[in-house]
Amino acid sequence: MSRNIVITIGREFGSGGREIGQKVAKALGISFYDKNLIDIAAKKSGINSDLLYQADEKASNPFFSAYLPTGTDYGTVNDRLFWTQSSIIKDLASKESCVIVGRCSDYVLEDFDNCMHIYIFAPLAKRIERIKDRYLIESDAAARKEIARTDKIRRSYYQYYTDRKWGGVDGKTMAIDSSFYGVDGTVDLIVNMVHKKWPDFVSPEKTEE
Amino acid sequence: MSRNIVITIGREFGSGGREIGQKVAKALGISFYDKNLIDIAAKKSGINSDLLYQADEKASNPFFSAYLPTGTDYGTVNDRLFWTQSSIIKDLASKESCVIVGRCSDYVLEDFDNCMHIYIFAPLAKRIERIKDRYLIESDAAARKEIARTDKIRRSYYQYYTDRKWGGVDGKTMAIDSSFYGVDGTVDLIVNMVHKKWPDFVSPEKTEE
Repeated sequence: MSRNIVITIGREFGSGGREIGQKVAKALGISFYDKNLIDIAAKKSGINSDLLYQADEKASNPFFSAYLPTGTDYGTVNDRLFWTQSSIIKDLASKESCVIVGRCSDYVLEDFDNCMHIYIFAPLAKRIERIKDRYLIESDAAARKEIARTDKIRRSYYQYYTDRKWGGVDGKTMAIDSSFYGVDGTVDLIVNMVHKKWPDFVSPEKTEE
Repeated sequence: MSRNIVITIGREFGSGGREIGQKVAKALGISFYDKNLIDIAAKKSGINSDLLYQADEKASNPFFSAYLPTGTDYGTVNDRLFWTQSSIIKDLASKESCVIVGRCSDYVLEDFDNCMHIYIFAPLAKRIERIKDRYLIESDAAARKEIARTDKIRRSYYQYYTDRKWGGVDGKTMAIDSSFYGVDGTVDLIVNMVHKKWPDFVSPEKTEE
């Protein structure tokens, strides 16, 4: 039996962290989770998935967050999503090798062995370039604003649900400026690091063959 | 002619960053600079090297820092050491491949090409273990205190002379938890990353042969 490994990826907006995560998962032949965790959470919790998508990677806010109908359950939609996702993440990590982007997954899995917690960042100028290109934003100023807004939401979310600082090495194994090797070069680096750390890791696809 | 490359290393106290830097320099056959920059600075500035050693990697403090005899020069010993070291670092970087530990060298060389700026960190428990072992400190509490004190001095120094935050990814290419692969594994990783980034890099020792 091949060893289960989990790679979590935290990322600055516009750093290409999600794309890197997807490509690493593909290269290693393992599952990839990010927003798709919400659909699993919707099924598991019975909460409407539209509500969950609105709450995705956002901190709970006592004034603005939707409260669920009172009953035996408590907390905002954001809280419920976080708790449900956390339990799904732990469940997945104990069953299969995978890459998980965001969702405080490094913190959720802090007691799990065989994890590599990666933070992807990049210089602001490179992130502006990427955001303009991918979201068809025309001005640098608008891209900069969107980066600041999204990072702020991610920071609040991460710091609300963990006791860590967002945006650096806290709780991480490694942090990589994606512009140094580029997206594909960073994917290669991470894949090599996985094989260096776990020489007995075999892609599940290969084991099935 | 081989390409000149420079690897700068910032590090948490007890993370093994200095040892990693030394071993990377040895593996690549290039020079290693850390405290030895002070002797070069003493020669260049004419300031007593004992004074410079006291000011090493410490921020200037208007109340406690030694002021130099007034004349055409100004600033504290700390300032003079920083300025002199910065000019030495730029000079070295333009002449030879090397590894430089600390001294805000990532910031000093921010406009230089062919640099890799690395930050070495480690979980507190691992750092306590290392510090106890290396400095023959007996209690965890004493080691923890020494770590907090030294990191505080390094943080003040870095943040006093740069416009960056110490202790993370600011201005860095990569940050690595040294406990993940261990000191020697981290050295291997960095050496491989150097060859991946600059395939035409040849150790100066090898060119001379």
